[in-house]
Amino acid sequence: MSEVHAARRLRLRERCAAAGSTAALVSREPNVRYLCGYAPAGAVLLLAPDRDLLVLPREPSGDPAEGRMPEDVGHVVLPSPEGDPAVAAADLAPGFGADGLAVEEHHLTVARHRAIAKVAPRLRLNDLGGVVEQLRLVKEDEEIAAIRIAAEISDQALGELLESILVGRTERHLALELERRLVDHGADGAAFPTCVGTGPNAGAAHHTPSDRRVEEGDFLTVCLGARYRGYRCEVGRTFVIGTEPAAWQIELYEVVFAAQRAGREALVPGVAHRDVDRVTRQVVEAAGYGDLLGPCVGHGVGLEIHEDPRLSPAAMGKLDACVPVTVEPGVHLPGRGGVRIDDTLVVRHAADGGPELLTITTKELLAL
Amino acid sequence: MSEVHAARRLRLRERCAAAGSTAALVSREPNVRYLCGYAPAGAVLLLAPDRDLLVLPREPSGDPAEGRMPEDVGHVVLPSPEGDPAVAAADLAPGFGADGLAVEEHHLTVARHRAIAKVAPRLRLNDLGGVVEQLRLVKEDEEIAAIRIAAEISDQALGELLESILVGRTERHLALELERRLVDHGADGAAFPTCVGTGPNAGAAHHTPSDRRVEEGDFLTVCLGARYRGYRCEVGRTFVIGTEPAAWQIELYEVVFAAQRAGREALVPGVAHRDVDRVTRQVVEAAGYGDLLGPCVGHGVGLEIHEDPRLSPAAMGKLDACVPVTVEPGVHLPGRGGVRIDDTLVVRHAADGGPELLTITTKELLAL
Repeated sequence: MSEVHAARRLRLRERCAAAGSTAALVSREPNVRYLCGYAPAGAVLLLAPDRDLLVLPREPSGDPAEGRMPEDVGHVVLPSPEGDPAVAAADLAPGFGADGLAVEEHHLTVARHRAIAKVAPRLRLNDLGGVVEQLRLVKEDEEIAAIRIAAEISDQALGELLESILVGRTERHLALELERRLVDHGADGAAFPTCVGTGPNAGAAHHTPSDRRVEEGDFLTVCLGARYRGYRCEVGRTFVIGTEPAAWQIELYEVVFAAQRAGREALVPGVAHRDVDRVTRQVVEAAGYGDLLGPCVGHGVGLEIHEDPRLSPAAMGKLDACVPVTVEPGVHLPGRGGVRIDDTLVVRHAADGGPELLTITTKELLAL
Repeated sequence: MSEVHAARRLRLRERCAAAGSTAALVSREPNVRYLCGYAPAGAVLLLAPDRDLLVLPREPSGDPAEGRMPEDVGHVVLPSPEGDPAVAAADLAPGFGADGLAVEEHHLTVARHRAIAKVAPRLRLNDLGGVVEQLRLVKEDEEIAAIRIAAEISDQALGELLESILVGRTERHLALELERRLVDHGADGAAFPTCVGTGPNAGAAHHTPSDRRVEEGDFLTVCLGARYRGYRCEVGRTFVIGTEPAAWQIELYEVVFAAQRAGREALVPGVAHRDVDRVTRQVVEAAGYGDLLGPCVGHGVGLEIHEDPRLSPAAMGKLDACVPVTVEPGVHLPGRGGVRIDDTLVVRHAADGGPELLTITTKELLAL
């Protein structure tokens, strides 16, 4: 992998040079990980003319989930945990041939930025902006392979849950069991807090698992994802518990299913982000539930669970090939519950088979 | 509780007025929660001359773990999740009689601060600094009561683990089981990622639970804590598995135990933070393990798991009564393992019975 990371750092250097900066200080954890494969909390990466250097807040813990220490990048450990690795890196930068330093102003606090300016007064500070996030947008094969494994783990954990008894168990316990199963199947951990909603909570956006117990006739919505080698994915399904689904449940499910399928099928290179939102939203609006749909029908995934692109009405830009995104429309009827269907897919050219579905758990309405 | 929060906001207003600012924008989540009892992710609190206002990034989820929406503070929800509540609040501030606005420069990024200055060009921006963190340092009875319950939950979860079979189970599974038990006993969740270390991993600082299985003769170190109504605590213990402890294990345990006791007994109002570190460290140094002790023997806890004060050699300041802190010296022998003993206590006057131990799980060296 180390050549991969070196190539990424080279691309970043080219971008910085084009913007007139001889050095960059990367402090956002997923960006540090992307550029050198290793990112314990608080670590920063300095790319200077004379060398690349990782500055660590403390001795490496050796936790494999943090990645592997790169062989081709030097590192220093701060003597005291009170120190700020970003300030220490800026202090070293001039000695490594830097006169200007591009920093992540969307991540550094005002106080840290001031401390950096103070320790290296001769360093011209400018804004690196979201350059590394832009580089991360289109994924390489190794990255998609990691997300694919995360998706397989997520499908396994979800599949096992469906085989167990659900009635009478609380949302909280089902969520904890799913997270345990993710780890059982090789995940570094959960990609985000597992969401389980039953009855009136089913299909609600941002619902936190409660002590409500699963009952006969409930909708049950589950949204989970594994983290594998730093990469994350998402899968969400809605089921009916026990009996035959009620008419309103079947009708609502069919609407969300049709909307989600429309969104998935729209995932081809060149389509506008907002058009994926539009074709998904139109189906829900046509059924009269438009005002119950969330502000965004999907988003990119990778080293973070929420990355660009954002698939929403206001989003700018077009999809590229090899961009993993979620498509996750949900409709929640206050007091009654609702449906959310969530997949992680990779945008592919039609010639390559079209959108690649990574989360393959069935989407028929199962009565469990 | 709402009078409590109103009184806290009044104290903050007084500090701001003294610093010449008519309004404050609080964006750090634990600070928002401290001042109004409610803090969904991303929410900010504006304290302006004409009114207090919560600006929320989206509709409240109703998750009780986020606290309860205050009755005496108004709130607005951003129309789009792309918006920044801090920028929206700054936009509203002049209309509520603010001419100056104190912001948390140790939390706001350079980019957000610039956006705030742009949306409200006539607003004098200055630095609120760590004023709210300072107000949070000495805890009120309600706060200590919440930490006490978090400690009881943590002791219960740990106690149950000690009654179960441990040999052959992985660090990862023991950690997940402990987190489930925390929730079973009423925690909102874990206060921090549960740490379980066995054999060579025992006693290591910042160890992440691995797939190593517990073996006969191992040291087993467990560090966990519950989150209850936003408040956090920490308890850590080290055990020996199965057989009689080896001589080196007993010797090392006695050193860390004596050091931790010295630190606990030093927790009286008026003692310097660094002196608590010194009396703890001296015991470890006298035994020849000084260079294996971490940079800090304890820290404050509350709405965050790491708060002021920091009990380290470089720390300034003195302990006050009603400040909850941890005392957690640990010694790790590379390749062999080690011992960490961690309690949460409240600093109390001798007349009030001296340091109040919240985490009461036994500290004798148990062979499990």
